[in-house]
Amino acid sequence: MCPNDLDQTNCPIPGAPVPSAEILARIDRLRHELRAHDMDGMFIVQRVDLFYFSGTAQSGFLYVPAEGEPLLMIKRYAPRARQESPIDQIVQIRSVKEIPLLMVEVCGGTPKRLGFEKDVVPAREFEFYKALFPGTVCLDGSPLVHRLRMIKSGWELDRMALTAGLSAATFEFMRKAIRPGYTEMEFGGMAEAFARKMGHGGKLRVRDYQTEGYPWHILSGESGGMVGVLDSPASGQGTSPAFPCGAGYRKIAAHEPIMIDFALVMNGYHMDETRMFSVGPMPEESDRACRAAIDIHDRVLDAVRPGVRLGELFDIATARAEALGVSREYLGPPGYKVSFIGHGIGLELVEHPVIAAKSDVRLEPGMVFALEPKMVFEGRFTAGIESVFAVTESGRRLVSQTPVDVFIV
Amino acid sequence: MCPNDLDQTNCPIPGAPVPSAEILARIDRLRHELRAHDMDGMFIVQRVDLFYFSGTAQSGFLYVPAEGEPLLMIKRYAPRARQESPIDQIVQIRSVKEIPLLMVEVCGGTPKRLGFEKDVVPAREFEFYKALFPGTVCLDGSPLVHRLRMIKSGWELDRMALTAGLSAATFEFMRKAIRPGYTEMEFGGMAEAFARKMGHGGKLRVRDYQTEGYPWHILSGESGGMVGVLDSPASGQGTSPAFPCGAGYRKIAAHEPIMIDFALVMNGYHMDETRMFSVGPMPEESDRACRAAIDIHDRVLDAVRPGVRLGELFDIATARAEALGVSREYLGPPGYKVSFIGHGIGLELVEHPVIAAKSDVRLEPGMVFALEPKMVFEGRFTAGIESVFAVTESGRRLVSQTPVDVFIV
Repeated sequence: MCPNDLDQTNCPIPGAPVPSAEILARIDRLRHELRAHDMDGMFIVQRVDLFYFSGTAQSGFLYVPAEGEPLLMIKRYAPRARQESPIDQIVQIRSVKEIPLLMVEVCGGTPKRLGFEKDVVPAREFEFYKALFPGTVCLDGSPLVHRLRMIKSGWELDRMALTAGLSAATFEFMRKAIRPGYTEMEFGGMAEAFARKMGHGGKLRVRDYQTEGYPWHILSGESGGMVGVLDSPASGQGTSPAFPCGAGYRKIAAHEPIMIDFALVMNGYHMDETRMFSVGPMPEESDRACRAAIDIHDRVLDAVRPGVRLGELFDIATARAEALGVSREYLGPPGYKVSFIGHGIGLELVEHPVIAAKSDVRLEPGMVFALEPKMVFEGRFTAGIESVFAVTESGRRLVSQTPVDVFIV
Repeated sequence: MCPNDLDQTNCPIPGAPVPSAEILARIDRLRHELRAHDMDGMFIVQRVDLFYFSGTAQSGFLYVPAEGEPLLMIKRYAPRARQESPIDQIVQIRSVKEIPLLMVEVCGGTPKRLGFEKDVVPAREFEFYKALFPGTVCLDGSPLVHRLRMIKSGWELDRMALTAGLSAATFEFMRKAIRPGYTEMEFGGMAEAFARKMGHGGKLRVRDYQTEGYPWHILSGESGGMVGVLDSPASGQGTSPAFPCGAGYRKIAAHEPIMIDFALVMNGYHMDETRMFSVGPMPEESDRACRAAIDIHDRVLDAVRPGVRLGELFDIATARAEALGVSREYLGPPGYKVSFIGHGIGLELVEHPVIAAKSDVRLEPGMVFALEPKMVFEGRFTAGIESVFAVTESGRRLVSQTPVDVFIV
């Protein structure tokens, strides 16, 4: 499966199926959550959730009753779903309207209280489902799904380590390839082409319909000083008013801070890392800002252990930014600061929970976060870092394999 | 803006703002539609619709009353919205909860009957809006938006022509660069890097939350013989069970049919074209299938003029496939055929209307379609073509600039 002309040590092997034991354990935990929340079943339609609970991303519907076996109903092509999923009951359907009768025939009835992914299913489609199950109370089951998905298994952490290897290789490629004169878009395309060859597959998946998953933010010099559409300290210029964020047509120059925020996916699992680059030494002020971001990042990591409140991590970072004298620029210019420093990551680029101000959610072993303290010197540049860590039984470890440093080449 | 080291004649200039007259005409038409459908206003939140009606894609909410001036409420950074949009009333908000009061203050009241984009706004978010406007009937306004967006203005057609130039240049790049031994993913990454350098910006936008916009399907040899997740004749192998469609790790070989379906975006406007490639002559059976697809494509184009039913175009294609002896493979293998041969395209990759079996929608001047008759020889290969055409006052013209041919190199 590995492209032929590559350094094999750097080339991970994608395409692994999800082990049966993983799927069965996930379904078991979902059934437990359903019972704990007084629901009789969960009706899963969203592609990523369906893959998480079934092992296949073929288009269809997964019904998981609180008691009894799950039923996977495939709309387009069931043979491939049967190859990929350990679920016993997989049927081909021709129309969504067959579903209630199938549930009666195969599962012995339709549920009284049924959970849906109300955070992503559009209002019109949800009304269609409500009409499809007239005797059923249709509830929001998405918090149960997020609750399960935010704790990663050992197998999932191994998948993320593969993507982390690809990410580190891609940052190393960028370190070697960056030159003044490339436009931000051009350089991003080069890095993406490298990553594709090495296994970066499919597309970045983002759950929120308003958050557009875009592979790379290359914000050079004053591009990084622009606030905009993104719920992130810096948005950049982008390519047009239609897509006003991320890389644009500015040419990379020497001796300026360049933020590269690059996301990758392999086997469905994402990585999301940011490093500051400079071709030749950068001015002292921006160099200091880059080091300050790393300092904040390290302080937060030092405090990570099970039981710690996410809001406490946020406060530690804010206090450190103050001590370092970067409060004004930290998390965005005055009046436009964001209120988070990190987010869960896994089968989607942005997952629960978020390391946000005042969050009372507590760290648990198996949670995985992208931690990204950043700052914006408005109109001038941005500085920051981002790496991915996992919470362990006693503390944390980096999933990221890219050196935690400023890349001055 | 144009990357420095390129053939300037091939390099379109992206980044153009939307002219005021475009925006004002769109809002005027929306107000007309609202009155015709007994709605007092439309509440627009989705990024692409917001860009269409305001000229800015900054995150926020656009309220268009049936009578009176629109109000654009920006969540994150209003200064950039003010630069990009000709709308007079643009305000910065800190919380969504300010909206009803703002509507009272600025627009003189909240509407009795308000349209929402119920095809994309998630069920939970829609319930939030319903609670935000307690005295208001919340309706589905998305058909009005689709109705307006499916007719492209001359300015929009000029934007699409720019993207079409980029698409033709990218297919020409692929014609020159394709070699046996590249994996499908690797070759796709190379083409994408070329396109990025030339102006392919941002990301492909797809409205439906279950349809994943992915830049390129490179289905070589038997990869093209696989049916799967996509609502398209062939899905391909993909990179893993998590993303089981499009390019995979198969190596491109000589003398085999290779389908390349490549989508691009510039200034927010998409192109979506498919060509068959072969390195050296391909076997006669697949060559004949490729020519049959072009024949069907041309027959459909010949029938395009205002007033023709979309279902009639579908039937013309089906009849021609039968006459050419490819019925069995046409639109997918027996039992797994899709029921459309094309889709609208513009600010989103897939727009209304769809050229579907039995559709009673009639062609109108300004509609733009990606026409894609394809076939699948199950387990062996796929063949097809896709180009973009616009309906004119008297017939049609191709927006695509890529030669309508099989690319044997």
